[in-house]
Amino acid sequence: MIARLRRQITSGTWPVGSRIPTETELVEQLGVARNTVREAVRALAHTGLLDIRHGSGSYVRATSELAGMMRTRFEKAHTDDIAEVRGALEVRAARLACARRTLEDLERLDALLTQRDKAWSDGDRVAFVNSDVAFHLAVVAASHNTVLAQLHADLGEVIRASLLDHFGEELRPEQFQDHSRLVEALRDRDSDRAAYESGSYMGCAPTQGDD
Amino acid sequence: MIARLRRQITSGTWPVGSRIPTETELVEQLGVARNTVREAVRALAHTGLLDIRHGSGSYVRATSELAGMMRTRFEKAHTDDIAEVRGALEVRAARLACARRTLEDLERLDALLTQRDKAWSDGDRVAFVNSDVAFHLAVVAASHNTVLAQLHADLGEVIRASLLDHFGEELRPEQFQDHSRLVEALRDRDSDRAAYESGSYMGCAPTQGDD
Repeated sequence: MIARLRRQITSGTWPVGSRIPTETELVEQLGVARNTVREAVRALAHTGLLDIRHGSGSYVRATSELAGMMRTRFEKAHTDDIAEVRGALEVRAARLACARRTLEDLERLDALLTQRDKAWSDGDRVAFVNSDVAFHLAVVAASHNTVLAQLHADLGEVIRASLLDHFGEELRPEQFQDHSRLVEALRDRDSDRAAYESGSYMGCAPTQGDD
Repeated sequence: MIARLRRQITSGTWPVGSRIPTETELVEQLGVARNTVREAVRALAHTGLLDIRHGSGSYVRATSELAGMMRTRFEKAHTDDIAEVRGALEVRAARLACARRTLEDLERLDALLTQRDKAWSDGDRVAFVNSDVAFHLAVVAASHNTVLAQLHADLGEVIRASLLDHFGEELRPEQFQDHSRLVEALRDRDSDRAAYESGSYMGCAPTQGDD
């Protein structure tokens, strides 16, 4: 039962910040005893995946135990510091991806760019943000370093959580950034250009050497 | 009681891999009931700081909950991948330290280098390794990004744990690397040189742009 609820969270079916179904709803949906549901929810709250707000419901706090713990650990840290670390990981991933990207990686990046462009021209904000996030994750995945990918994703979640705490759901795509030059650099295996392009959208000053 | 034992671990009084005093010894040392000791040890095992090996005793597994969780999460990852991420963080820290290091940071680095040199010429392996580790942590601390410092330290612990699992206590200083050029680069605020020097001892190929 714990594993079943946990999967709803780690798979993203119940996204971070969303309220999960009530105890009564879960009892009905899953056909298990109320006590079983309650214990599973408590166990997931204990490991940092859920946040039980009495009188309001249970909310998804993190999609992995590591992300949940980072959120706790870095609660008092500056979001800028977290973003700086995440930026460093993404730029390094772009460099590594130049050496390690496969043709499948490039195809996936091309497809995501196309999706992202379409969402932008359709004015579909949700689809745009989703394909943008997927694009960034795909760049990092092309580094073929799973530890790097995991930490990058978890830090991204911590940043988003802290932004949502401050500004609510109003995360607007500040501006349309052209990521096609990054994909070209990965295609050409040009590590300096990839780092430059990646650094510029990560908000690092895209000056020489800032990678 | 949990807090008291936890502090022995997080402060490094009981280092990673060491066996903590037995239940009987703790009862005598701390003047508390055996049940209290047992529960505290179990709680710390639950959060990943201790490893209870029945018939042998309890061993320190990690110095922070985050490091303990990373150890669990990255148990099956290649040590090379972890080292690559840690290297990326250390090189980025060296760059950031060029902009942010204070005079106190430089004094601390100078003092640690002197200690490290002395330990080397005395042939004191333990003192050498300790001052070497302290030097690397001080470089990262000079970035004045606490999130970066925390992740770097925790990943270092995960790598050491995995090396110790494979090779036992025989971590020899492979060779004496000269870190004075790194400190000079930080003094001069020369970001490219700092990244190059940091990258060369982190085992990144110190080629242009590999930072």
